[in-house]
Amino acid sequence: MTKGRLEAFSDGVIAIIITIMVLELRPPEGQAISDLHHVAPKLGAYLLSFVLIGIYWVNHHHLFVLVQRIDGRALWANLMLLFCLSLVSFATAWWGEHPWATGPAFWYAVVQLLCALAYTALVQTLLRLHPPPSQLAEAVRTDWKGKLSGVAYLVAALAALFAPWLAIAIIVAVAIAWLVPDRRVARVVEGG
Amino acid sequence: MTKGRLEAFSDGVIAIIITIMVLELRPPEGQAISDLHHVAPKLGAYLLSFVLIGIYWVNHHHLFVLVQRIDGRALWANLMLLFCLSLVSFATAWWGEHPWATGPAFWYAVVQLLCALAYTALVQTLLRLHPPPSQLAEAVRTDWKGKLSGVAYLVAALAALFAPWLAIAIIVAVAIAWLVPDRRVARVVEGG
Amino acid sequence: MTKGRLEAFSDGVIAIIITIMVLELRPPEGQAISDLHHVAPKLGAYLLSFVLIGIYWVNHHHLFVLVQRIDGRALWANLMLLFCLSLVSFATAWWGEHPWATGPAFWYAVVQLLCALAYTALVQTLLRLHPPPSQLAEAVRTDWKGKLSGVAYLVAALAALFAPWLAIAIIVAVAIAWLVPDRRVARVVEGG
Amino acid sequence: MTKGRLEAFSDGVIAIIITIMVLELRPPEGQAISDLHHVAPKLGAYLLSFVLIGIYWVNHHHLFVLVQRIDGRALWANLMLLFCLSLVSFATAWWGEHPWATGPAFWYAVVQLLCALAYTALVQTLLRLHPPPSQLAEAVRTDWKGKLSGVAYLVAALAALFAPWLAIAIIVAVAIAWLVPDRRVARVVEGG
Repeated sequence: MTKGRLEAFSDGVIAIIITIMVLELRPPEGQAISDLHHVAPKLGAYLLSFVLIGIYWVNHHHLFVLVQRIDGRALWANLMLLFCLSLVSFATAWWGEHPWATGPAFWYAVVQLLCALAYTALVQTLLRLHPPPSQLAEAVRTDWKGKLSGVAYLVAALAALFAPWLAIAIIVAVAIAWLVPDRRVARVVEGG
Repeated sequence: MTKGRLEAFSDGVIAIIITIMVLELRPPEGQAISDLHHVAPKLGAYLLSFVLIGIYWVNHHHLFVLVQRIDGRALWANLMLLFCLSLVSFATAWWGEHPWATGPAFWYAVVQLLCALAYTALVQTLLRLHPPPSQLAEAVRTDWKGKLSGVAYLVAALAALFAPWLAIAIIVAVAIAWLVPDRRVARVVEGG
Repeated sequence: MTKGRLEAFSDGVIAIIITIMVLELRPPEGQAISDLHHVAPKLGAYLLSFVLIGIYWVNHHHLFVLVQRIDGRALWANLMLLFCLSLVSFATAWWGEHPWATGPAFWYAVVQLLCALAYTALVQTLLRLHPPPSQLAEAVRTDWKGKLSGVAYLVAALAALFAPWLAIAIIVAVAIAWLVPDRRVARVVEGG
Repeated sequence: MTKGRLEAFSDGVIAIIITIMVLELRPPEGQAISDLHHVAPKLGAYLLSFVLIGIYWVNHHHLFVLVQRIDGRALWANLMLLFCLSLVSFATAWWGEHPWATGPAFWYAVVQLLCALAYTALVQTLLRLHPPPSQLAEAVRTDWKGKLSGVAYLVAALAALFAPWLAIAIIVAVAIAWLVPDRRVARVVEGG
């Protein structure tokens, strides 16, 4: 079983998830430049979610460069990741409407946590097929960034109960930390 | 005629079908965590439909690994499967709004039945191009799981007339049975 | 310049066009099976449009099997075809709401005419790159089915002014005529 | 790291952006042919945006023919271009509702400017990986058309403050100038 269709299907689903969020950006009521202010929170939420999903796409890309074989279990681990990622668009829509409220910030953090767990599960599934010594095992050996992200999302979900803005700040910080592409994988791929 | 574009187009359509269902998950009115309860039935319906369509994608993937050639008839059998799968999103939207009502449960079961019939028709069309002895014929020889699913969906549609919850329970059971990837095909592919 | 990305992009756009039409199928108000009757006209319109766009995808598939090279002009001829095809979803939405009215039937026929003209223009652009003797020129030499379709859509647009049902009947007839895959191309491809 | 998935993902996102704009074309209220007049401004806006995004796809296509290698930075430069392009659909929706107002015309021009800047940034990122002498460096050496476009969009944004129609006229003029495919790249590709 080759990874080509899994990659193509994942690209398709992620492309749709990352793009349909723009449908939430409804034109403002008025027709003055200042009316754009009403859209600003949704635009900010869209940008953050675009970056967060972009991070998953980039890491998925890096990950599968090192994958030689997949099985049915990997197909389903991948589908579950795509399901969690699709919830980001729903969470973004709610959060964009109430940027400083408890519920949306909590849910947004929970969805990010689900995505992080699903990604970890996918990596574990692929590791079963590529046990050490393998390029994949070498690349993801000490996944401290992934583990810290999971903890950060958990903290963000709890923080949302008291201070929604803190939850958002934590998630933005995680996004910035991930914007640096995964050097561990990159190093192995480029033969360092 | 090669199967590459058929696979790519099918991946595209299935990716869209499986993803646009999330557009039905509208943000709740309020902004408290408890307001998520209003979304719970739609979220459950989305998860079930995501899994059911995921099953078709996985089986489609397994199926076409064994396909060497296609013709115009196969293109259309495939298009008809995609049409039926696209109706799942419509059926999910209706069912998510009335989780325990007769009409939506009946229609949801009928659409699943149509998908199962369309998949069977696609397999038959491909078998005409790969008559036994062929890997494909060997892999799908005794399709008891497919046949039982069709019967189960028919029973579910009838059950919906009396007990909508029973129809849903049957469909969930079928989904669970299919979550195990098609070992018959997998065995042949992996050279068992 | 290779045709791979043109095919992939076209597959993507056609996959989206053919699928987003299902978003027009809104769940009926009620929750009884009989409430599905309100959706029936839209479902019929969706099926017809799905088949019509499916025909273009199948013919596009057959056509590009015979194409060896493309240029910027071909990219734009292809984009214009995709633009016209995207209007089908808009025309379908209007027609599904007023199945027996003049305006939607007229517009639906006009959009089909535009698609037919755009497809002809694409074929002509490709013929400039593959002048006879070529497989492509051989395959599309006597395109009577394409020409007749254009005339039929023109007649349908005019008929819509007096009898909308006649316009629809003509378009359905054209669809049925095209459901047979393009034997001319198929013959050349399969080496007849 | 190969460019295949970057191209496939970009094709997917651009295909979705270019197509979901058609969702803004809502069926008119009435059912007479003359009711289409209400849709005309939105149809015009859709056509212009379709062409503008089509230009980016064609140029992206030409560009990546000359690209041999990518890195994480290029993935992100590409994602930022896709983000800016996705804003075109939002800007089109607003502009289509108020074709002659200041705010939408200003925002439409600003989004075009952002896209032009993002495309330039992507080219610069790729040039770092393909320093002169390279086919890419040769092809984009004197990017006067790109630079002029950026200036024109800036002028259009300023013009929108006084005369919205002028902003649109400038953008239409830029679109027409770009409809000629990038001969510089084409020349290098085709071995000139």
